[in-house]
Amino acid sequence: MPLDFRKIALIGKSGDQKVAETLVMLIADLNQRNLDIILDISAAKYFENPAYPVLQHPELGEQADLVIVVGGDGTLLGAARKLSDTNVPVLGVNLGRLGFLADVSPDQWHDTFTHIFAGKYQEEHRMLLHASILRNNDIIGESDALNDVVIHKWDIARMIELETTINKRFLHSLRADGLIVATPTGSTAYALSGGGPLLHPTLEAIVLVPICPHTLSNRPIVVNSASQIEVTVQGGEHTEAQVTFDGQINIPLNPGDVIRIEQKPQQLRLLHPEHHDHFQVMRNKLRWAEQP
Amino acid sequence: MPLDFRKIALIGKSGDQKVAETLVMLIADLNQRNLDIILDISAAKYFENPAYPVLQHPELGEQADLVIVVGGDGTLLGAARKLSDTNVPVLGVNLGRLGFLADVSPDQWHDTFTHIFAGKYQEEHRMLLHASILRNNDIIGESDALNDVVIHKWDIARMIELETTINKRFLHSLRADGLIVATPTGSTAYALSGGGPLLHPTLEAIVLVPICPHTLSNRPIVVNSASQIEVTVQGGEHTEAQVTFDGQINIPLNPGDVIRIEQKPQQLRLLHPEHHDHFQVMRNKLRWAEQP
Amino acid sequence: MPLDFRKIALIGKSGDQKVAETLVMLIADLNQRNLDIILDISAAKYFENPAYPVLQHPELGEQADLVIVVGGDGTLLGAARKLSDTNVPVLGVNLGRLGFLADVSPDQWHDTFTHIFAGKYQEEHRMLLHASILRNNDIIGESDALNDVVIHKWDIARMIELETTINKRFLHSLRADGLIVATPTGSTAYALSGGGPLLHPTLEAIVLVPICPHTLSNRPIVVNSASQIEVTVQGGEHTEAQVTFDGQINIPLNPGDVIRIEQKPQQLRLLHPEHHDHFQVMRNKLRWAEQP
Amino acid sequence: MPLDFRKIALIGKSGDQKVAETLVMLIADLNQRNLDIILDISAAKYFENPAYPVLQHPELGEQADLVIVVGGDGTLLGAARKLSDTNVPVLGVNLGRLGFLADVSPDQWHDTFTHIFAGKYQEEHRMLLHASILRNNDIIGESDALNDVVIHKWDIARMIELETTINKRFLHSLRADGLIVATPTGSTAYALSGGGPLLHPTLEAIVLVPICPHTLSNRPIVVNSASQIEVTVQGGEHTEAQVTFDGQINIPLNPGDVIRIEQKPQQLRLLHPEHHDHFQVMRNKLRWAEQP
Repeated sequence: MPLDFRKIALIGKSGDQKVAETLVMLIADLNQRNLDIILDISAAKYFENPAYPVLQHPELGEQADLVIVVGGDGTLLGAARKLSDTNVPVLGVNLGRLGFLADVSPDQWHDTFTHIFAGKYQEEHRMLLHASILRNNDIIGESDALNDVVIHKWDIARMIELETTINKRFLHSLRADGLIVATPTGSTAYALSGGGPLLHPTLEAIVLVPICPHTLSNRPIVVNSASQIEVTVQGGEHTEAQVTFDGQINIPLNPGDVIRIEQKPQQLRLLHPEHHDHFQVMRNKLRWAEQP
Repeated sequence: MPLDFRKIALIGKSGDQKVAETLVMLIADLNQRNLDIILDISAAKYFENPAYPVLQHPELGEQADLVIVVGGDGTLLGAARKLSDTNVPVLGVNLGRLGFLADVSPDQWHDTFTHIFAGKYQEEHRMLLHASILRNNDIIGESDALNDVVIHKWDIARMIELETTINKRFLHSLRADGLIVATPTGSTAYALSGGGPLLHPTLEAIVLVPICPHTLSNRPIVVNSASQIEVTVQGGEHTEAQVTFDGQINIPLNPGDVIRIEQKPQQLRLLHPEHHDHFQVMRNKLRWAEQP
Repeated sequence: MPLDFRKIALIGKSGDQKVAETLVMLIADLNQRNLDIILDISAAKYFENPAYPVLQHPELGEQADLVIVVGGDGTLLGAARKLSDTNVPVLGVNLGRLGFLADVSPDQWHDTFTHIFAGKYQEEHRMLLHASILRNNDIIGESDALNDVVIHKWDIARMIELETTINKRFLHSLRADGLIVATPTGSTAYALSGGGPLLHPTLEAIVLVPICPHTLSNRPIVVNSASQIEVTVQGGEHTEAQVTFDGQINIPLNPGDVIRIEQKPQQLRLLHPEHHDHFQVMRNKLRWAEQP
Repeated sequence: MPLDFRKIALIGKSGDQKVAETLVMLIADLNQRNLDIILDISAAKYFENPAYPVLQHPELGEQADLVIVVGGDGTLLGAARKLSDTNVPVLGVNLGRLGFLADVSPDQWHDTFTHIFAGKYQEEHRMLLHASILRNNDIIGESDALNDVVIHKWDIARMIELETTINKRFLHSLRADGLIVATPTGSTAYALSGGGPLLHPTLEAIVLVPICPHTLSNRPIVVNSASQIEVTVQGGEHTEAQVTFDGQINIPLNPGDVIRIEQKPQQLRLLHPEHHDHFQVMRNKLRWAEQP
């Protein structure tokens, strides 16, 4: 049985005139469907006197039956990290090229909405990572990631040294530009640039991809999503490492810092149009396996 | 609570004098422990008048509480394909270098046995693949594989063309030397030579690794082990493809043949010594991620 | 000063009706230009009573001022191996997709010919390899290759072991499916499928690319074209290796056989249309570095 | 006929007590051989009142018959960039692990010196790169590099966009973390971490290796060392790119900046012990192609 979508929240990418125009059209469309509208602060900014309630996280996610994100995969990544606690389904309207996450195209959203509000859509549960940075046993920072947690050098001239354990078992020492710890969702993003494999979104798995490893024999490894991954920054007095979440949030690291990464208990409920085909998106967006 | 191992079956690699010598020692050891012994035909061949019952599959697996395989990973692969139906635990004594599967070393088997019969061991469940070859909708051949199902060219001068679907959805067309469909166990074998990622043995996953693909943009993909993978051999009147299971069983293919690959419902129950560490074996055997 | 092309030899791919039709058109065109025509046996076969002299190698190459090959890169590879001794320039008319070597397209050959006979073209010198197979110090076979000399397994289930020296210095022992020794021309062919780098055609270099090496730490190596490369087939009583030249000529190998590979003193004189751009062909044919 | 080495200059890595101790021993040894000694400022710093002339570049290279560099590959890289103009031969004494460039080991230098001063050594000519950064047609910076010129991002969260031409012909647009342009010497350094091939030091070639390219179909390309490579930084108002020479010198880049890279006319004259074997060093240092 389909969900009953009555209250629709809107999130918009910042500072993009096309987003403003799309929001106006979406609001008109949702009004015609007699649905309730909530605006995220990011969407409300586009209006002088918004006629709809403006809510912030976590209220937005808690009150809405469905969140529509207008922008691209980057906007949806940010929304996903905030909304995953509230279990609200999310749909992405992309304004540029078709995204992996935001896959309702601007010229098809009306029809897609009609299908979705009639209960015709696909719902996927995407896992997220949660990472804490431990310094002398204190948590000095933490964040979620839908794509990846990347530990990497800051200063360009030098490699960093990392030591990785999986469930407290030593995995490897790594001298490299960094290490990408990615979800299946993230396997089509930065992990792919680093030479990682593609992981189907339904896999309960985490992939570790070294960035420019000093060692010839390194190779990506895929582990169970129930694994606890700990990465310790090695090095002398001053190193130049930092950790980045989804390419959007940075925290600087000191030698001795431990980045503890685990699957987040909550998952993102991501909606797709009815005939969404993940492999087709992969082939289109990545030109994956395409014959010349 | 540990298993009660009373009846121990022995399987041996063929035509290797060291296997004969090891079997003599193992039998003496098992006798001292007052355990019942069953011989597989492969082990019985080493004795003129074996003093123990000689059984074949599937009786061997059904009657034994534990099967000890003497040889290497190759011998254990063959045993695993036969024994997986019977749910009997398997332990591998390797005669050469430490194996991924046969990891009781010849100089430590006595102590390891003492631990194992005292219930101190690790038990892993390793998934297998089952593949059927369909020609005009008839199954013309089928087999299990613990490592991999490989569809590859036979004639060296030409590529083959394959079309792959996952759960009936088109994945890709491939012009290549072949395609490796591997379990996590097989990810450290031929799939690794082909450029595939390492998969932890506990993953419920299957990795597809193209062999020398004609297309630059190809990349291994990891899918859920519940996926049904179908590979169709393309090509004109005569192609030169075949399918190989664990590098041990070959079946020639015709154009139009479909290789349907699924997870086998039964798993291999593989025993390891108490302090077995999969990552350590990986580092030792593959020199994986080793610093020069 | 351009070459004076008076006598034009024609070579055609076998058994292709489109080749026959193209040859008829080319001959009419060349007649109109008052040029002398020579037919290779491969082209003559398409005519009941050819009105032109039919010559074979090496006479064809010695008498002609220009050889036009009608077919694709495969046909040109075969012609190149035969013609390189005679120093005659070669031009390729492709019938299917644009080739790396045969790059005069069927709808543009008339204009291209006008340019070429007016001296407007690019001439490239492409290096070839010459390989001898030594068995007990006797040469039991030899051939040239424009693309590559590939030593590879024959039997699918087993790796082969090869030992490679460069100028008599030990390079590496290799357990793999095989080894590709390629020219810059061959770097866009099978060597690329095996993971090798692209080499610009003007490089005086040879690239060695292992096929599915057992060792994680292997990596292609590019050596000077003046190097003498010797590959010795390792293994016991019976191995299953063979050597293949340009994917077109096969010679079976025994354990102990040495494949000695050197640059051939003569080079192929390959003509291209005036505005030929190698990088553009690479991008078009390989979709190399293309943005999705 | 060997070179007549009369005047020996010494260069030392900074701030390393082992360098000081080694310099004392080397000086005593050279005195015993009745050779003239010159100190670079880097070596002179270790002595309160140096008893030998202290010279700086370029005088040091012009006056010396041989320069001995004490440290590691990093120290030799720096010396090479400065000394290559003066055509003086350079020998490297490594204090830690065997280097690719500094390959006289601390326990063998006495014997190696005896051989070298008797004319028994290998001399290699290693190509360098010279790069200029052009901003609005002005050269705003330039440097040599023995290993590599790397254009890369500065800010971690974003890719950079680069456009590359070879001899004014468009090669590719690249969205990536960066681009490594390396000599054969540099092919065993950062370019290798980025997935590049090994190039034999005698090759007259330059390799371009993308760092974490966004595009699946990218692949390293090797071009003639006579090529002029131009890389233009794309991007809007503010990008975050910089160029690094041998990992030692950084220059920040603006959008629109062009990095023009060419082979430097002068080469480094690098001396090796008599029995130096490049492939052996490669195998030892990289564990290249090593069997597990």
